[in-house]
Amino acid sequence: MSRLPDRERAPDGNDSRGDTGPQEMVPSRKNMVLVDGVILNGPTTDAKAGERFVEDACRLIMEEVVLKATDIREKVNVKAWDAKIPKLVPTLPPHLSFQTPIQFLLSWKAASKCGETGQDPEFHQVCEWRPPEELKRLLDLELRDAGEPHHRLLERCQDIIRYSVKTNHPRFFNQLYAGLDYYSLVARFMTEALNPSVYTYEVSPVFLLVEEAVLKKMIEFIGWKEGDGIFNPGGSVSNMYAMNLARYKYCPDIKEKGLSGLPRLILFTSAECHYSMKKSASFLGIGTENVCFVETDGRGKMIPEELEKRVQEAEKEGAAPFLVCATSGTTVLGAFDPLDEIADICERHGLWLHVDDLLKRCYSANASYLFQQDKFYDVSYDTGDKSIQCSRRPDAFKFWMAWKALGTLGLEERVNRALALSRYLVEEIKKREGFKLLMEPEYANICFWYIPPSLRQMEEGPEFWAKLHLVAPAIKERMMKKGSLMLGYQPHRGKVNFFRQVVISPQVSREDMDFLLDEIDLLGRDM
Amino acid sequence: MSRLPDRERAPDGNDSRGDTGPQEMVPSRKNMVLVDGVILNGPTTDAKAGERFVEDACRLIMEEVVLKATDIREKVNVKAWDAKIPKLVPTLPPHLSFQTPIQFLLSWKAASKCGETGQDPEFHQVCEWRPPEELKRLLDLELRDAGEPHHRLLERCQDIIRYSVKTNHPRFFNQLYAGLDYYSLVARFMTEALNPSVYTYEVSPVFLLVEEAVLKKMIEFIGWKEGDGIFNPGGSVSNMYAMNLARYKYCPDIKEKGLSGLPRLILFTSAECHYSMKKSASFLGIGTENVCFVETDGRGKMIPEELEKRVQEAEKEGAAPFLVCATSGTTVLGAFDPLDEIADICERHGLWLHVDDLLKRCYSANASYLFQQDKFYDVSYDTGDKSIQCSRRPDAFKFWMAWKALGTLGLEERVNRALALSRYLVEEIKKREGFKLLMEPEYANICFWYIPPSLRQMEEGPEFWAKLHLVAPAIKERMMKKGSLMLGYQPHRGKVNFFRQVVISPQVSREDMDFLLDEIDLLGRDM
Repeated sequence: MSRLPDRERAPDGNDSRGDTGPQEMVPSRKNMVLVDGVILNGPTTDAKAGERFVEDACRLIMEEVVLKATDIREKVNVKAWDAKIPKLVPTLPPHLSFQTPIQFLLSWKAASKCGETGQDPEFHQVCEWRPPEELKRLLDLELRDAGEPHHRLLERCQDIIRYSVKTNHPRFFNQLYAGLDYYSLVARFMTEALNPSVYTYEVSPVFLLVEEAVLKKMIEFIGWKEGDGIFNPGGSVSNMYAMNLARYKYCPDIKEKGLSGLPRLILFTSAECHYSMKKSASFLGIGTENVCFVETDGRGKMIPEELEKRVQEAEKEGAAPFLVCATSGTTVLGAFDPLDEIADICERHGLWLHVDDLLKRCYSANASYLFQQDKFYDVSYDTGDKSIQCSRRPDAFKFWMAWKALGTLGLEERVNRALALSRYLVEEIKKREGFKLLMEPEYANICFWYIPPSLRQMEEGPEFWAKLHLVAPAIKERMMKKGSLMLGYQPHRGKVNFFRQVVISPQVSREDMDFLLDEIDLLGRDM
Repeated sequence: MSRLPDRERAPDGNDSRGDTGPQEMVPSRKNMVLVDGVILNGPTTDAKAGERFVEDACRLIMEEVVLKATDIREKVNVKAWDAKIPKLVPTLPPHLSFQTPIQFLLSWKAASKCGETGQDPEFHQVCEWRPPEELKRLLDLELRDAGEPHHRLLERCQDIIRYSVKTNHPRFFNQLYAGLDYYSLVARFMTEALNPSVYTYEVSPVFLLVEEAVLKKMIEFIGWKEGDGIFNPGGSVSNMYAMNLARYKYCPDIKEKGLSGLPRLILFTSAECHYSMKKSASFLGIGTENVCFVETDGRGKMIPEELEKRVQEAEKEGAAPFLVCATSGTTVLGAFDPLDEIADICERHGLWLHVDDLLKRCYSANASYLFQQDKFYDVSYDTGDKSIQCSRRPDAFKFWMAWKALGTLGLEERVNRALALSRYLVEEIKKREGFKLLMEPEYANICFWYIPPSLRQMEEGPEFWAKLHLVAPAIKERMMKKGSLMLGYQPHRGKVNFFRQVVISPQVSREDMDFLLDEIDLLGRDM
């Protein structure tokens, strides 16, 4: 792969290559066929120009997104960055004691430049933060009567890439997805180019078979003898399917008759469940009040005795329990509900058990899916198809490609490495002054506080927690404006704001874990 | 864009370029950091090899998908095609009278080769049809413990492209999407490379603003002073949103309390509505029996007097009417419900009126969307967000890019041309022997029968219709196996199987309309 020269922009906005013409061609007037003043013979689109545009854009994407994904260093304008620093200082929360702005500025600049943390001041930013109004001005998003020539569209593409958050960047830790998987990326490019919709063999033969192959392997992987499933546009939609299936199992008539006149259906999930449970209950007409949140233990796991108590209470009240949604890997703490004990309770009370996608967390393939244990799904809709959608993207394909490329063993290695990196980070947090774990993690979710110097000697009373609550948002703002990394934070069930790191990306290494802690300390040490 | 040489495959399956190594690198052992036997320093993925793979795959996609999209001619193996013809003959429906297979074979081959229809026997197929078991063998979809080297993955990509239906092909007329829009394709490539998820400004600043800009323009376009909306993964999901909103409007308590104990909610839609209406009613707990299908006139339009009658009946029965789903452009006939009269009825009875996406049919941008007229949506979910999904792709972006490139005027031209092409096709159908319109189309959906020679002199009685019913499927099978075009057919409300052509793709021209009729005649003239 040879690096491409920087795209030239003529100062007057004209394309130096001269492809300024309109995108739509004037159709041929030879043997003209006119209907209502429209010439119908020949194509109107200039295929050659369109193809060149796609090719140029692909080069840009390759250069600006794919090649930079694993590259943390880049020449950035250090002057521009210097100019930004003073702006950061006044945004420190007023309730904390600080050094003077100048002290902070000097120490930060010194640390940044002297490589105290091993970080080069010339780095490839995770994000180039701009407030909405400024960004609107920079992008010119308005849609007009006239179209734009290709060279200008390419400039727009460049700007869109520039101001987008680099979720592929090795230091993007903000969400439960990160990193770049080359294989699933290629599969997604192919999907977009072929533009299939998965509903009949006739129109999507390859992708229907791909989905079947992935599901077959996943079912085998879990250890089931048979099973069925479908790839959905996300975990929230998958949870809705699960709830709908359980309801159908409880009372198939609901499909035709609806819920009107029936006893109140009630479902049980842990207080740590994904918020899509409430959304699903609302959407499906069950009602959010009929989601019963079962108490969890200190680690975030559903307490089976509490579950059984709540089921019995609901039965006594005349409600109709129909579903338990267990979670394997909760969103915040990464907790696993005790499935065996929950399954026993479900059996005793005749309840459907759904487990919220364990595998989603295991493979960093950005695929969300859902398993269902039996076949009645095929008949739960008149049309006989399995999806609530009509058109559906072949989401299994990206997962298939990554699996094919890496093999089961390669995927296993990725999981093992992510878990080992998590354990490394936990040990580092324990060793370092100013860092404090919320709890020993049971999985790849690592929740921790950064305690700035001014709070380190303070007693852990109400004042301490109130001040600590402000630290993570202040550090987050600084990291966003600097663009050096992105990491999420949240308060959780009485615990004040803490950072949450979930190791996902196959690109991250020990050095990135060190950087994460170094950088937080650098950004927060004046607080 | 220079054409690429054909990818070489060594006969033993080894890559002649030598990149056979494993995809995952062995991590550096220098300054090794070990946790549980896993080396943590340095990346494990070989970024250089991954980047090269993406680049090679992009070239393949460009060559095999994008450049071929507008190209109907290609060197295919004429011998292989000749060998296929005899297989087609025995599949003719037994209830029709035919020439002998040999007569058919000879006349077809002669017509194909002599260019009677202007078609070259060496053509780029819309599909290369294989039955499922054969296709499985050809593709080797099985997922194994070991991964595969890049050159083999590229071969797989090539095969996947080869056996996929070419929905970009100018003669793919099978669905309500077709053709290749270079601008939305680039936007989709960018989306996949940047891998954003649209939920907060923090993580998706650009795409949130893009969605806002597109919605703003669409609202302005419709002529509303204000409005709100969201891009969804398809029209079916959009209809579910609409139904949920109407229900919330009818009784906001349903969100928390559910439907249990409430009167039976009932909604009204035309007998020609999209099947997602029933799915939505089932999913939302309303029940399919509570979808009241209002009678349509001969053109497929809802009869307003019938609607009002059914609403009054439902009210008398103690049910609770809450919604009318009108359709602007029905799926099969392309009929438009009379919105003004329906709106008056809705006003009289206090019903929510939803119109199933008119714009989706107008712009061939493959974007599906939904408009909502007021703001209460933001508060209809606890989390304050608008989507039932958590993660969401920036679907507005592909539409934005196409709009930006073509301008409103360019989009308008596309619509005008599609409608003019439709009118051209209608006139051709009227002129040609053996073709018969179901009805004068009111939009771009053109429904017609092909009447083969053996039926042309027959009286239009039960035997005629029974035989005609078998013609479209037989022609469809032949076109699939030949791969020359793809066109959908269906029976509809007492009408026997007919073809349906919807002009969508910006690439099609008058020549493609002629080809469509020529080819159907060629494939069916022996029947």
